[in-house]
Amino acid sequence: MSIVVVGSVAYDTVETANGGADEALGGSAIYFSVAARFFTPVSVVGIVGSDFKPDSRQILADRGIDIRGLEQRPGKTFRWHGRYHEDMNKRDTLSVALNVFENFSPDLLPDQRRCDYLFLGNIAPELQERVLSQVMSPKLVAGDTMNHWIQERGPELRKLLSRIDILTLNDEEARMLSGEHNLVKAGKAILRMGPKTALVKRGEYGVIQFSSEGMFAVPAYPLEEVVDPTGAGDTFAGAFMGYLARNGRINESSLRTAAVYGTVVASFVVERFSLDRLLELTWEEIEQRYRAFIELTDSHHSRWTSQ
Amino acid sequence: MSIVVVGSVAYDTVETANGGADEALGGSAIYFSVAARFFTPVSVVGIVGSDFKPDSRQILADRGIDIRGLEQRPGKTFRWHGRYHEDMNKRDTLSVALNVFENFSPDLLPDQRRCDYLFLGNIAPELQERVLSQVMSPKLVAGDTMNHWIQERGPELRKLLSRIDILTLNDEEARMLSGEHNLVKAGKAILRMGPKTALVKRGEYGVIQFSSEGMFAVPAYPLEEVVDPTGAGDTFAGAFMGYLARNGRINESSLRTAAVYGTVVASFVVERFSLDRLLELTWEEIEQRYRAFIELTDSHHSRWTSQ
Repeated sequence: MSIVVVGSVAYDTVETANGGADEALGGSAIYFSVAARFFTPVSVVGIVGSDFKPDSRQILADRGIDIRGLEQRPGKTFRWHGRYHEDMNKRDTLSVALNVFENFSPDLLPDQRRCDYLFLGNIAPELQERVLSQVMSPKLVAGDTMNHWIQERGPELRKLLSRIDILTLNDEEARMLSGEHNLVKAGKAILRMGPKTALVKRGEYGVIQFSSEGMFAVPAYPLEEVVDPTGAGDTFAGAFMGYLARNGRINESSLRTAAVYGTVVASFVVERFSLDRLLELTWEEIEQRYRAFIELTDSHHSRWTSQ
Repeated sequence: MSIVVVGSVAYDTVETANGGADEALGGSAIYFSVAARFFTPVSVVGIVGSDFKPDSRQILADRGIDIRGLEQRPGKTFRWHGRYHEDMNKRDTLSVALNVFENFSPDLLPDQRRCDYLFLGNIAPELQERVLSQVMSPKLVAGDTMNHWIQERGPELRKLLSRIDILTLNDEEARMLSGEHNLVKAGKAILRMGPKTALVKRGEYGVIQFSSEGMFAVPAYPLEEVVDPTGAGDTFAGAFMGYLARNGRINESSLRTAAVYGTVVASFVVERFSLDRLLELTWEEIEQRYRAFIELTDSHHSRWTSQ
């Protein structure tokens, strides 16, 4: 089943202690699409400026991503410039220029309105609502948000939350949204706001998934080197939704497998700058690391007891 | 099989935003013993002052802990006074009075020298070495250390590391000992120093176990309320070693199960101040949370696929 994703499309400039990326293709909808495409067809909905490079378009088209929904407008594409600390969990935003993104008002194509799987990337809740209202009878709706919308668009966000199935957000945002410092309490409070599943992302510490069935703790895949964490959360979401859409069944079992695939694909994107690692990634590598992840967390010791 | 543990015995004063404990029985050897005793007999080796209360002795004796090795000397028992931040991962030490602990020079009893399982709690590496040298042919030796010894007793610690099987330490200490910021690199570097297994404790983020077989990531059991993190690491170590000693086989499978039992018992100790929760804990509660932990981390979805 195919997915429609709406979100940002950007050119990112990233600085780290060990190099950086300059005006590299990024944005939540892009990371999501490239990750989800390993599992299922994806239509991306976003806005770009007249400076959007044919090369960028080609990168997406080459991977079979449907880019009819990339609206091009006069002006510049969204720009983000950030710098990571030595501790890669922390970063400073040096500049943000919304450019054409400021007047983004997404309209889905007729076939996109009939989609079964919808992902509302991190944009204003009223825009997420606008897109959701255009979709006729989605099977599964997931969304992401951020501290800015929690603080500035509380009522709009709360309204949206009552209409979506799955919310992804990071630990700091979960605390802010719920007003609970403790993550278990925060997760439960978010479920009471509407979503049946909440995925709390904790960067290098992994993800906790909350649902009516209980909690699922997924550690991050430990890496010897993290080059660039940009896009890891969107990549997680893309692989997570991609797996669910391909699988077609939504239950605790498929949600857990989806969270593991999300973790696995996100562990690749941080190995190099920007999309570089995702663009050369193979399905075989994903499956290989999926098996390594199962071993990493295998307290049933299905492999070890036979030794 | 019984365990001999050497370490600190203290009266702790703890402050948190929600209350505290005053002169409560604590110290690495005490938390370790009370946790390990759920699995196997334990002999505790430590030093106490003339102010050590008969009640404290009784608490240990009532749980069948062998306290013949608790040497009593004129003077006061070790005191520690700490205050936790709102973020319980951080604490300030307000005062430390080593008292009789300053002249601790442990000598094992003849039967303790024949023990199979030895845990060298967090004391000076030369004292850990002294105890190790008294044990005739241990089957398994594990030890803990801290930033102070890494900085001040580097050569002594490195010598000890070449003689022990398992090292437990926290993430900050692992980075300091190895000189590697990345935890995967740090874990591997520590294995090259001697231990066959290294357990890196990350507080609320769980434990990563490193061995020649690879990594095992164990998330902490998520709790709705953490009252007092004091002693969690020593409790982890006590249940970990306790399981191994009871099981009798040391392999990747038993090490993984041991790390889960360590995590489970440690998740109880933080629910109340000091030893309070551990002292009322039942084996049934441990087994119940063990099963809950397996579900929490079950990406095999052995339970869920049948639904």
